[in-house]
Formats: sequence, structure tokens, C-alpha cells
Amino acid sequence: MIQKNIIVNGVPRNVFVDQEATLAKVLREQLHLLGTKIGCGEGMCGACNVILNGKLARSCVVRMKRLDDGAQILTVEGIGTPQSLHPIQRAWIKHGGAQCGYCTPGFIVSAKALLDANKSPSREDVREWFQKNRNACRCTGYIPLVDAVMDAAKVLRGEMKAEELDYKLPADGHIWGSDSYYPRPTAAAKVTGTIRYGGDIAVELPPDKLCMALVQAKVSHANIKGIDTSAAEKMPGVVKIVTHKDIKGNNRINGLAFPSNKGDGKERPILCDSKVFQYGDAIAVVCAATEAEAKAAAAAVKVDLEVLPAYLSVPAAKAPDAIEIHPGTPNVYYYQYVRKGGETKPFFDKGDLVVAEDTIITSRTPHMPLEPDCAFGFVHDDGAVIVHSKSIGVHLHKVMIAEGLGLADDKLHLVSNPMGGTFGYKFSPTNEAIVAACVMATGRPCYLVFDYHQQMQYTGKRSPFYGTIRLAAQKDGKLVAMESDYDVDHGPYCEFGDLLTVRGVQFMGAAYDIPNIRGEGRTVCTNHSWGSAFRGYGGTQAQLISEIVVDEMAEKLKMDPWEFRHKNAIRPPATNPNSQTLDSYAYVEMLDAIKPKYDEALKAAKAGSTATHKKGVGLAMGSYGCGLDGPDSSNAYVELHADGTITVCTAWEDHGQGADMGAVGTAHKTLTPMAVAPERLKFTWADTRNPVSGPAGGSRSQVMTGGAVRVACENMLAGLKKDSGGYLTYDEAKAAGKPTKYDGTFSVPGVPLDENGVGKPFMVYMYGVCMSEVTVELATGKTKVDKVTFFVDIGKVNNRLVVDGQLWGGVAQAIGLALSEDFEDIEKHKTMLGGGFPYIKDIPDNIELRYFENAREFGPHGAAGVGEIPLCVPHPSILNAIFNATGARVRRVPALPERVLEALKNKA
Amino acid sequence: MIQKNIIVNGVPRNVFVDQEATLAKVLREQLHLLGTKIGCGEGMCGACNVILNGKLARSCVVRMKRLDDGAQILTVEGIGTPQSLHPIQRAWIKHGGAQCGYCTPGFIVSAKALLDANKSPSREDVREWFQKNRNACRCTGYIPLVDAVMDAAKVLRGEMKAEELDYKLPADGHIWGSDSYYPRPTAAAKVTGTIRYGGDIAVELPPDKLCMALVQAKVSHANIKGIDTSAAEKMPGVVKIVTHKDIKGNNRINGLAFPSNKGDGKERPILCDSKVFQYGDAIAVVCAATEAEAKAAAAAVKVDLEVLPAYLSVPAAKAPDAIEIHPGTPNVYYYQYVRKGGETKPFFDKGDLVVAEDTIITSRTPHMPLEPDCAFGFVHDDGAVIVHSKSIGVHLHKVMIAEGLGLADDKLHLVSNPMGGTFGYKFSPTNEAIVAACVMATGRPCYLVFDYHQQMQYTGKRSPFYGTIRLAAQKDGKLVAMESDYDVDHGPYCEFGDLLTVRGVQFMGAAYDIPNIRGEGRTVCTNHSWGSAFRGYGGTQAQLISEIVVDEMAEKLKMDPWEFRHKNAIRPPATNPNSQTLDSYAYVEMLDAIKPKYDEALKAAKAGSTATHKKGVGLAMGSYGCGLDGPDSSNAYVELHADGTITVCTAWEDHGQGADMGAVGTAHKTLTPMAVAPERLKFTWADTRNPVSGPAGGSRSQVMTGGAVRVACENMLAGLKKDSGGYLTYDEAKAAGKPTKYDGTFSVPGVPLDENGVGKPFMVYMYGVCMSEVTVELATGKTKVDKVTFFVDIGKVNNRLVVDGQLWGGVAQAIGLALSEDFEDIEKHKTMLGGGFPYIKDIPDNIELRYFENAREFGPHGAAGVGEIPLCVPHPSILNAIFNATGARVRRVPALPERVLEALKNKA
Repeated sequence: MIQKNIIVNGVPRNVFVDQEATLAKVLREQLHLLGTKIGCGEGMCGACNVILNGKLARSCVVRMKRLDDGAQILTVEGIGTPQSLHPIQRAWIKHGGAQCGYCTPGFIVSAKALLDANKSPSREDVREWFQKNRNACRCTGYIPLVDAVMDAAKVLRGEMKAEELDYKLPADGHIWGSDSYYPRPTAAAKVTGTIRYGGDIAVELPPDKLCMALVQAKVSHANIKGIDTSAAEKMPGVVKIVTHKDIKGNNRINGLAFPSNKGDGKERPILCDSKVFQYGDAIAVVCAATEAEAKAAAAAVKVDLEVLPAYLSVPAAKAPDAIEIHPGTPNVYYYQYVRKGGETKPFFDKGDLVVAEDTIITSRTPHMPLEPDCAFGFVHDDGAVIVHSKSIGVHLHKVMIAEGLGLADDKLHLVSNPMGGTFGYKFSPTNEAIVAACVMATGRPCYLVFDYHQQMQYTGKRSPFYGTIRLAAQKDGKLVAMESDYDVDHGPYCEFGDLLTVRGVQFMGAAYDIPNIRGEGRTVCTNHSWGSAFRGYGGTQAQLISEIVVDEMAEKLKMDPWEFRHKNAIRPPATNPNSQTLDSYAYVEMLDAIKPKYDEALKAAKAGSTATHKKGVGLAMGSYGCGLDGPDSSNAYVELHADGTITVCTAWEDHGQGADMGAVGTAHKTLTPMAVAPERLKFTWADTRNPVSGPAGGSRSQVMTGGAVRVACENMLAGLKKDSGGYLTYDEAKAAGKPTKYDGTFSVPGVPLDENGVGKPFMVYMYGVCMSEVTVELATGKTKVDKVTFFVDIGKVNNRLVVDGQLWGGVAQAIGLALSEDFEDIEKHKTMLGGGFPYIKDIPDNIELRYFENAREFGPHGAAGVGEIPLCVPHPSILNAIFNATGARVRRVPALPERVLEALKNKA
Repeated sequence: MIQKNIIVNGVPRNVFVDQEATLAKVLREQLHLLGTKIGCGEGMCGACNVILNGKLARSCVVRMKRLDDGAQILTVEGIGTPQSLHPIQRAWIKHGGAQCGYCTPGFIVSAKALLDANKSPSREDVREWFQKNRNACRCTGYIPLVDAVMDAAKVLRGEMKAEELDYKLPADGHIWGSDSYYPRPTAAAKVTGTIRYGGDIAVELPPDKLCMALVQAKVSHANIKGIDTSAAEKMPGVVKIVTHKDIKGNNRINGLAFPSNKGDGKERPILCDSKVFQYGDAIAVVCAATEAEAKAAAAAVKVDLEVLPAYLSVPAAKAPDAIEIHPGTPNVYYYQYVRKGGETKPFFDKGDLVVAEDTIITSRTPHMPLEPDCAFGFVHDDGAVIVHSKSIGVHLHKVMIAEGLGLADDKLHLVSNPMGGTFGYKFSPTNEAIVAACVMATGRPCYLVFDYHQQMQYTGKRSPFYGTIRLAAQKDGKLVAMESDYDVDHGPYCEFGDLLTVRGVQFMGAAYDIPNIRGEGRTVCTNHSWGSAFRGYGGTQAQLISEIVVDEMAEKLKMDPWEFRHKNAIRPPATNPNSQTLDSYAYVEMLDAIKPKYDEALKAAKAGSTATHKKGVGLAMGSYGCGLDGPDSSNAYVELHADGTITVCTAWEDHGQGADMGAVGTAHKTLTPMAVAPERLKFTWADTRNPVSGPAGGSRSQVMTGGAVRVACENMLAGLKKDSGGYLTYDEAKAAGKPTKYDGTFSVPGVPLDENGVGKPFMVYMYGVCMSEVTVELATGKTKVDKVTFFVDIGKVNNRLVVDGQLWGGVAQAIGLALSEDFEDIEKHKTMLGGGFPYIKDIPDNIELRYFENAREFGPHGAAGVGEIPLCVPHPSILNAIFNATGARVRRVPALPERVLEALKNKA
């Protein structure tokens, strides 16, 4: 230990530290300045940015020994407070710069450092700055961040008043609609670093809290012969080492397998007992007073393993000599079929049709949220075990883990924290059951915060599809038949692997009028990372495969890809692959609207291409459903309080996508007759003690939970309406014996697919058409996306800041998926840089969005969802643009330079 | 555990708490809002004030279960920041409202609540508010706090601009002098709650820190037969239980006994081994991960005691059958004599002189700082044990504890934290050696924070004097002789008990020209709380005794007390009791100046007295020395840095008295030729690695360490002076090969008393004349001080805010000493209320100060000290005023109502 006299936010502080401790840890855990976040923890993301002696520094890589006495440190807390926002913070709110908000303090500190040095940066200067300083954002696509810096700079130059940045309610008081830039309710807390994420709350738990450290498998497949905790138990600070023997229930996560699944869905242990199924699997957990003590003891736990062959891909797991990963369940454990129209074989056999066929392999994409996975739990004084985590399906996860833990329904509650992004990985339980087990074993509050390598190696990933599509078209270009055949590598755990496989037959070719379809998908168990949801879930993979083959068909037909799509776009009364009529047929309208831009882009690409750098334009179109699959429902209540505030209570998990705004915006719109000031509406964080709203995934929440909020508000309007006009106040309602709390339930009449893939899986869909413009450097194969034009029909828009942000951010992830992101190599890909995280210069500053607001019958006030659509459409347009630029067809994402080079070679 | 959703400083926070935890603990230890202080911990001091749902609340007594969800909490951090001060905070700085600063956040929060409710309070409204809400301040005498609230209210009403509250440097740039209200350098940190005291830093220590809990004696005297830690060692979280067996050295605090002391000064154990000597003595220490674990295990340590008779007073310890408390050393272990002029016996025997004689008993006054004792320590990476505490004598304490711990000189360093007041109790080591022992035994950072009962029961107290004085005067009133005889109850530990006894012969009757003096003082060992320094140290007790007898003599002579004092006040060339010529003979000048006020006060008292309430006026005068005793010296250095700042480095401990301002003001004055902006001067916290400056007690620091600073600055001026005029900059000095660091040493040629009490113990003295006006309620005996007029000669004034604050605050303590404060009953007096802490309504809003600035030869720029003088003069004037009002003579302080009633009865 050493002492340092430093000046933090203008205040001299004597700090007593391990000289090897990082500044970030000291700021957070000792000085309790929790606005400084730890993301990657290795200098790759900037969430921990501070200004150190006037210069921007990533505090997670600054060791305390490097600080001189007198060092000046500015953290986000020193920039502004909720009561006194800095212009940068006001601009961040105005532009919706904070979605999950986890990167926000680091960006704001970074922007402060930039503007301290240069009050008149250009947009490109701002982008260079954020690139140089590795400021990573996973939500926004960076565009609103640059907007915010440009506006803040204006204020700092005196060209704009700071107040001009603040939201002004329009005269009619509305905050719903595509003209509404009402800031989300959590914005001020996010831009000031005062919102508390799980890892922050862990620091703030009572003094008897215990830090958890996992003992994890370092192999991908093994039998467990023994677990020896005896030496570790004697180590300092160790309170308990928890193994499967301490689990009170059946120690299994319930994967909620479909009836036709060949497994029972209960193959995933809470803590490994007989086998290790994937790298990182948790075998034991040390609960100790401090992180250092927990980690030291975890390293001392001895595990005796019989290593088995690791099946890290579909071919390996399907090989004839492969053993069953879960003994008794075949490695191919689920089949899904689709049969629409007539048999397709004759079309392909006849020979008079043009046939296009290709096999595409998609990636095991890592979600790479800025915030690593974290959770904490405790025994409530009412006797229940409470676990707070990044769950985006609190009620769902409770069902999945309660039996495994041996807890009755009223003895377990799950709550979702403010979260630094999930993008779907938290549709699966990760740490919840492990934390609960430790809480139960120790009786004390326990917390588990992953480092970034654990986030990468031991949370679910997007499951790769190995997919083959055959299309048959008449010579005039009219599609007549499609055949699909695909395997889904879902890793070792089945959870929703069957559901994901269903998505293939729902979305392959779904944008087109294809009268005859046959297809088969299979779910495959492997020893690579388990499959979890990721934005676009299945639609991403399905439409990547089909949109590439569609482009190939246009090529075969010598038709322009736009022409081909326009000709075959689904129009009334055609049905989708599941023989369902659509809720909006907007493709033709969107294609027509994009056409002039497309023509211009083609011309520009031709003009801009050089001998070394080829420019190209690619198109794609597609859709995604808003819902779980089949029938779906959600619940909410609204409650008027004495102070005039109204709680909008749901279990709508906010992982940064804007549940707060979704709930408040929908309620406000519905309550228009009551003329409620928007700040009177209070959002609730998701909790299993709230109404069952279903998970926040699959773009279902605005539709389903928004629907429940609408119904609850309508019930309140009816209940509080006065005969004389106007509405009862709280006091009046109480006096009149009227309720002040109103429930709302909303359901949709969906129909799950039958054995032929026929049904109405979703009652609301989103649609999009996307054009990407790229430059490919021939010598290196490096692809740069120059511009994205993305037209969407997501029904009526609730809030523009939210949907713009979701789309920009989703496009950025689509670019990452197309070009860089991967988690195939467990070692190489375990960091943000290794995993191909897209930084600001990887994302064009030019992403043009347009909304085609066709009202949805089943959406509240006509709204559909938004989150998944940008991961269902843009990425194939990038692959198609690479082909347009170079003639090289990349058949596996990410289209890394080496893959593009290889495709260029194959073409020749 | 439960969850509460509360709004703290405008930010919604989910907190997870023990429902029995107090809000103060949760704010501090979980939410890390360390501006909220814990003082008494039982609702008696307001240091923990917050605004809860719009109302002021003492957060140390608010249990979390009492908070509703949605509760709004405002702490000092939500009121303003160093960068953005609230008008209340600016006014607090302007008026020097923060001395030690520990009560400051609580007062500022309280003032905010008041001004939120009432923007136009009268001074009396403010006083009523602080009284009603039990806002306790121990430093300021409350006057500047009311001033600050009145000014802040003006700003909030819009009658004054906030900027008008801010300090403006005069045109000539000076900050030295009685016209200077330059705010002390730590002011902004104190008013914003951002300065970190020991208990705050304990919260901020690295995660491997251990909480210490003492196993303390619950009896006052016992032999220790055994200490059984076996059960406690197995309890959760316990890392180590430290007993005397773990101490590496001789386990003794070195009390630095005088050679003529009958003990060796090494009777105090670090941790008790063979005996318990007083209630609260530490027998063992549990070091555990959390406070709860440490306390639980401490309660489980079993101590086998043979209880011995407890000698809790001088008569008990001197009784013939009393055993030796420290076997081998008599209970009366030190004698001090004074012999001036001729033998005195003949004067008293002759019978032609008027003789006055009385015996007065002073109190075991508790210091009652707002901040309970605290410390922490760790092993530095350089191998040394570092202990941070409230030490006001870091080098002194190191000498006292190093051998006991078995640490070499370079293996122990002591550092003083920002402190919430000591008023002298930390002139003794308290926890330093115990913390060091635990650090050595565990190798981990350890901290020990007392609760208020521990502060009261297990820190040193002002030692009671049992004193008899006989005066002989001619019939014309001229004093000719004095005899004194006194015992000092120093508790069980000798540390400085001999020195304290010396003070009796130095200050009894020291204000008068008494040609013949004989006296004897004795130091007595008892089993009550050990004696430690307290402002006025010895001078307080000595002059209380002699000033009462002086008043009695005037009464006997039928002379007005002013006339008697004026006649006998020491004038040149008379010498003091130690036959020393004074450095300033200001009594006559001060008495003349106070005379018109005295006449007016007497008239008003007569007019104001009623049958039930008697008013009276009392006088007292006295002095105190600035120094340790005999020769004294101090060291400092000043160092110019590249950024133009100058470190003023000393080990001048700041316990709230203003070491920061003392060092900076003295340096600035000396460096006038260099025209240094005052903010360029940097104060250092005391540390044994700094130059040896001696302890911050006995009002010596401004003289001695101020002198060293002056010399260092003069050396810098000489070293950096350019031949061409002006001074070298840092770069110029480096280029010219000149030093940038300059040492300064200052010594005074004092002479300690010889066996006859002759010497020059101090080369600089302070003098004062005080008049108190009181009202006594005859039915109850309750005394109220209506006004205090205090004229002082403290030489030249460095900074007016500091000296006004020291005097107001000291007068308030003198009132407490006179009327309410006591620690005789170990149980009853263990709280602030029980100990008689003076609240605002106990202190008049009218304390008039006047400075007679006679420059001191040995004071830097003519300054003397200030801290002790208000506890050497005002308190006897109150006792004399009670007599003047009622004719009742109270002979024991505090003059509690029952003692006044008894004196009234005795008079009759």
C-alpha cells in the first residue's frame, strides 16, 4: 500500500491504495465515484475515461503508482450533476446519446477533453477523437454522439444558449409520435453517471456482502471426476465454497424445450456436476469478503477432469463417431419443416427454370455489451431470495431456475437492474441461479461481476446457421419455388434452440412472394458457446442466407437486384412462408422510394471506383415479427397517487432499448384526455413482483406490454371519468370510493406453426429495405461501409429519439456482423478488439433513416416494435454490396479482409 | 435485508439495506455520501443532518425501515459543490463558520431546511432553530454560524448578490493582519462535505481493510487473570484477535516522565497485560472484515478479572489504605514547588493583613469534539507501518509508542488526518499504538472508529485540581503574599501529569503583582479517566482557583473587584510567580478599556434583577504561555515548484484551530516582497516525514512553527533574490543552480522551572481580561450567561477569522466548563447531553472581543498564540458573576443548578 495525494474533481484527496490497483478501481471502490464505469477493463472501450492532468485517460489501465502526488483527476461527477448539467450533458440528452448509458460517462468525459482542447471541431474531428481514444458505444451507432458534441461545442463557443438544448413540450402537450424528441426518463441520470448499474450497486451493498468468484472449466468437454475445495476453504476471507452439492433443487436450468424436442430441456446444470459441456462452465463458486480473496481461493480449487473430444462445430457434432454430448439425447435434437404450396422438387428437376443455390455460414456473433454480466442477490426479510441481474425476462427466468434451486414460487424474485446493454444475451439466464445458490448457501448478500473475458467466454452467443437455399425463377424473373436446408449450432444448451430453428422457416425468403416452399431446419448440440438470443434472433441468420441467394438469382437472371426484388416483393394477397397474410405490405412502397437513391448510388460507385478501391451498392429487404411465437400476452397496471404521479407498472425490462420511454410514451398517449404532464408518469424497473409482462425480446414489448399499458390507461380513463367532464383526482377518487389502480391485459391471437410450418406466429411485423454503399480495397480485402440508407415500416412511432437510436445502433451492429464480429476462437476473440467490436470509424456518419408509418391493428396506437429489424436487413446488403463492387461473393460472415481476398481469388 | 427506492439528492436510488440500519450509515457506508458525518450517533449533535421529505432529520437515528419508497433525501452533497457553492456555503466561508468543519455539513443542511421554510429569520429565529434541532458546534461559539445564515438569507431574498459573500483580496495583496478575513484554505472542502476525516478515509480504504473492535474493561481497577479468545477467533469474518502477546515491543506507552517523577512513565500498556487501570482500558482487539463481525467477536472474548478497589478521586487514591495503582510507584508521584520573594508564612501569621482563603475543585472536563476518536493504519510498501489519526503531536507520539511496538525509527510514521476537533485530548496518544499493533499482526489495513460513548469513556480528560489558595493583602488592597496547595487527579497514566502540575505554580495568581509566593502541587494517580491536555491546560484550573479567591479577597476588603484587580495587576517591573519579566504588561490597559463597560454592566444588572432572577457581573484576568516549557523549537521548509506553487511544509497539526491558515498566513506575510498570490501557498498535513514542528498544543504553533515558517521564507527570499531586483522563478533558480527548497528552524531561549519554580518557561504569553454578565434563577439555581466581554492581548493578529473563531469558541467552552460540562460519572456523563455539551442557547449571541496588539519579540511578525487564552480567563468571571448576582460562592465546577442552589443555601 501507498498513499497518494491527488485532486479529484477539484477536491484534494488522500488515498491509500495498492500501488498496482487501477485508477478505475480506486475511483469506484474506494472513492465511490461510480460514474466511472469499467467495461472491457483493458483499455479498449473508454467507459472508464477520466481526465488526468488535463489529458484523457482510460483509468482501467492506469496503475496508481503512475500517478504523481498532486495529480488532477476529473470524472463525470465533476462535470455536472442532475441539478446542474454541463452543456455536453444537455446535448447528450437532446440527441438521445444515452441508450443503455453505460458508455455515456466515458464519452462525456472524452468529449469534455476534446472540447477543452478544441472548441470548434468538425464532425470528422470528433470521430477521429473518439476513434483515437477508443470510445466504444454499442447502442447508438455513434451518430447522435457526434451530433451532441457539435451542439455542445456551439454552446461552449457562445453561439447557442445552453437552454436551447433542453426539451420543450409542444403547446398541445403531446410526447407521442415521430415528431417527438422527448428525452427518455432515465436520460439525466445516465449523462451524469448517477444511475446505478448492477456492478455499482454491488459496491453499495451492505458491509456483509460477499464477492463471488467462479471456478470455471478451461476445457470444452469433460467428465468431472472430483472437485476438491479443501485447501481453498482455508484461505483468508473465504466464507463458503459452493458446489453442486449445495444446490437444494435438481441443479438444472429448465430450458423449456418444445414437446417435439428430443431432449427434455434440463441438460444445463446450475453448477456442473457430472460433466463440463463448454469452456467456462461453472464448477464451483467461492464466496469471500473481497474480490482478491475470492479469486485467490477460486484458483486453489482443484478439479479432476476426464477430457472428452470437443465438438466445436456442426460437422464435428454430426460426425458419425461423435458421442452424445448429453448422453441419451442425440446431438441433432430438433427438426423444423416448412411446406407451402406444392412440392418444390419438380420445379428444380424440370430444368426450364433458372435456379440459384448457395450455402452460407453465419457467425457465432458476440453481443459485446459495454457492461460485463453482473448480478447480486440477498435474502429478503420476508424470507424470499432476491436476485438482481441483467435479466430481460424476469418472469421467464424465474420459471427456468426456481425448480433447479429448490425454491417455491414465493421464495424467489428476480429483478432487472439498469443495464449496460444486453442485445439479447440476457434472454437466457446467466448468473441468476448461481447467485441465488450462493445467497442460499451463505445467507448473506452475494455479488458476481464478470470481467470482459468472462463476458465473452461464458455468456450465450448468436448461434451460427449453416444454411443452403435453392431458388427457382421463371426467365422473366418471377420466383416460383424455394428450398431451404439448415443446421443451427446452438452450443451445449437447448434453451430456445428449437424456437430459434423455427425462425429459419419463418424468415428465409419472407420478403418475397414465393408460392411454393419446402424446407428443413435442425438444431445441433455442440461444445461451443451456448446459443442465446441476439437482436434479430434467427431472422438475422435466415435473411442473410436468403438475401445473398436472392442477389445471386438476380445475377443469374442478369436482372438488376432492385428490379428483381421489386418484381418479387410480397404484395397482397400473397402470404409469407408460413402462409400468413401480412399486417403491412410496404416493400413496394419502400423500394419505390429508395429507387432514386439507388440509381444515384450506383452511378457514384462506378464513378468512385479506382483500380485499387472498388465501390459497390447492395440491397436487401426483410422483416421480423414482434412477439414470442403464436399467442402472446402481457400485463400492466397504472396507479394514481396522492401527489398526482402515476406509476406505470410493468415488468418491461430496460436493457437500454428504452422501456422507460416505451411505457411512459404509451401511457401518456393513452391518457391524453387526462392531460397528464409527462414527468408525472413513473416507470418501474422489471421485477417478478410486478405484473407478468413477458420478456423484453423479439421486439415484442412496445406491442405487447405497450398494449397492456394502453388497456390499463384506458381502464383508468373509464374509471376516473367524471360525469361532469374531466377526471377525478386522487382525493376525489378516494372520496368517491373509486379505484386509483387499474390493471391492463393485452393478448394477440397468434397461432404457432404446425408440423408443416403453417401458422400465424406474429400478429405484428416490422419491414425494412436497406441499401449499403461500400468501398473494398482490393489489395487487402478490407471493406468500408460508406453509407447506409435504411427505410423501415415499424408502424406508428412512439418516440423519435428512441427509434432513431435503435436503428442507428442496430445498423452499426449489422455492419459489425457483416464485417468484423466473431466468437469462434475462444482465446483470440475474448476481448472487444479480438471480437471485432465496431468503433466509430467503422460506422459511417451517414445512415439515412425513413419511416413508413403504416398503423398496426395490434400495436398500441398503431405501433410495431423496432429493435430487431436493423439486424434483419442491413447486413446482407453489405455482403451484396461487396459483390457489386468486386464480383466476389463472400459466403461466410464476418467478411473479414482475408475472406474477401479469398472470394476475390475464387472469382478469378 | 430489504430494498428501498429512495431519491437522494434528486437521483432515484435503489438501496439494499438492513432495515434496522440507520440512514446515516447507509448514506455513508453504502451510498458513500461521506459529507454526512456521524458525531454522537444518538441524535444529540446534528452532524448527520439531512433533509428528509422536506424536513430536517438526524439521519443517525432514522432507521431504514422508517423510510417510505420514494422518500426524498438531501445531503450536503446535494446542496453545492466546490465548483458551485450554495449561498449558505459561501456565507459559511465568509464568516469562518467551518473551523474543524465536522459539524459544518450538518449545520449547512440545517440552515437550508430553515431557509427553505423561512427566508427572513431573525437572529433569534436562527438560534431557536439550531437549538431545537440540536445542532452542536464545539469550535465556533455559534456566533459566526448565525452571521452566515443571516447573510445567506439576504442572498436568497435577493437583497445581496452571492458574489458579495466571496473574499476579495485587497489592492496591496496582503492577507496578514487583524483586518484580514482571508478564508482558511480548507474552507471550501469543509462547507461542501468533501474534506475527508479519518472515519471517512476508513470507508475509502482498499477492500482488504479490517475493522477493529476493542475488548474493553468494564471495571476501573483489576488484575487480569486470563484472556480467552478461542471462541471469538472462530466467529465469521474474524481475521485476528490481537492481545498484548502480539505486541512486538515492551507494550508500553512512554509517558516521557520528568526525572523527578517517582514513576518511570512506562506504566501505560498498549494493550492491558497484568492489570486494568481504568474503565474502558483495551484488553484485546478483534480485526474482522466488517464492523458487525468485529463487534460480535469482541463481545465473545472472555476476560478473567480480579476486581480491585477503584480510586476514583484524589482523596480515595491518597487514603492511607489505598494500594499502589502501579505497584512500586506511590499514588502521589510528583511534586512541584514555587518559591518567590520571602517566606509567606509570616504574612499569614502576623494578623495585620487581610487574608482570603478558599478551596476550589475543578472538573474532569470532557473535550467533546464532534468527531469521535478514529484512526487507521497500513504497512507501506517501503516496509514502514503508517498510522493516520487525530494526533496533534505526530513526532511526539512516535517517540512515545515506537519502543512499545518494537519498531525502529524508520519503520513507523504517524500522520494527522483532517480532524473534527480535539481541543487537546489528542496531545496524548490514544489509538495509534493499538492500530499499529493490529496492522503489524495482520499485515492489512486496519481502522478503529470509536462510538461516542467510547470517545467519552476512553480518551483523556481535563484533570481536576483540588486547590487551596491563601492570599494576604494590606488593608489598602495591595497583595503581599500568596500560598497555594493543590493536588492534580491525573488518572492512571502519568503522561505529562508532571508538566500539568507545573502549570499550577506558573499560573495561579499570575496576573498580579504578588511579591511573595510559596506553593506546592502534587500529581496523584487515580483510576478515573487518564488526564490529557485540554485547551488552557493547567492555566484553566490554576486561574479558576486563584481568580475566585482574588474575588473573595476583594469582597473581604470591601473593594470593587475591578478596583482590586486594577490595583494589583502586574505592572513593570514586577515579575510573575516564576520571577520572570513579562513580554507584555497589558492588564492595566485592558482593565481601563473595559471599565466603562463594567460600570454599565453593573448598573444594568442591578436594574435588571428581580425577586426571582438575579443578574450579576463578574471579572477575571489571566494569562497563558505559548510553548511547551523551557526551551522550544520548530522546523519547517518552503519549496517552490515549477507550477509556481510553494509548499509550506511543517508538521503543524490542524485540529480545527487553523494550522492551514497559520502556516499560509505567516508564509504569505514573510514572502510579501515576492508578491505571491495566496492560493499559490500549499499547506501540508502533519506527518512524521515532515520537519519536526512539535505538537500543536499550548498555543505554541503560531509562535514556534510560525517562527520556523518565517525563517524558511526569509531564507527563500535571500536565496531567490535577484541582484537586479525581484526574485528568481523556479526555472530561473534551477538554471542558476540555486535551491528551490529552504529550511527554517526557530528556537526560543526558555528556561524550565528550577526546584523553586523559578525560570522562563515561556518566551511569549497571551493575556486577557474578561467580564461576564449572568442571570441566575433563584428557584432553580440555573445560570444563564447573557453577555461576555473579552479583551485580549495575543500580540499581532495573523487572521481575524481564525482568532475571532478561536476566541468565540473558547469562550463557549469556558461557559460549558463553568456551568455544565463534566465527566465524573462514567455512565451518566458518557453522552453529549450527559456530559453537558453547550448548545447554541447556552452561549450568548453577544460575545464582544477586542484585540490589544502588542507585538511580541519572539512571535513571527509580532504574533503570539490564541487557542488557550479563552479557557484561562472567562470561566472564573462567570463564577464571580454568580456571586455578584446572588452572593453565593460556588466552589466546584461545573456550577450546575444544584450546586448553585446549595451555595445559595450555604450563604443564608
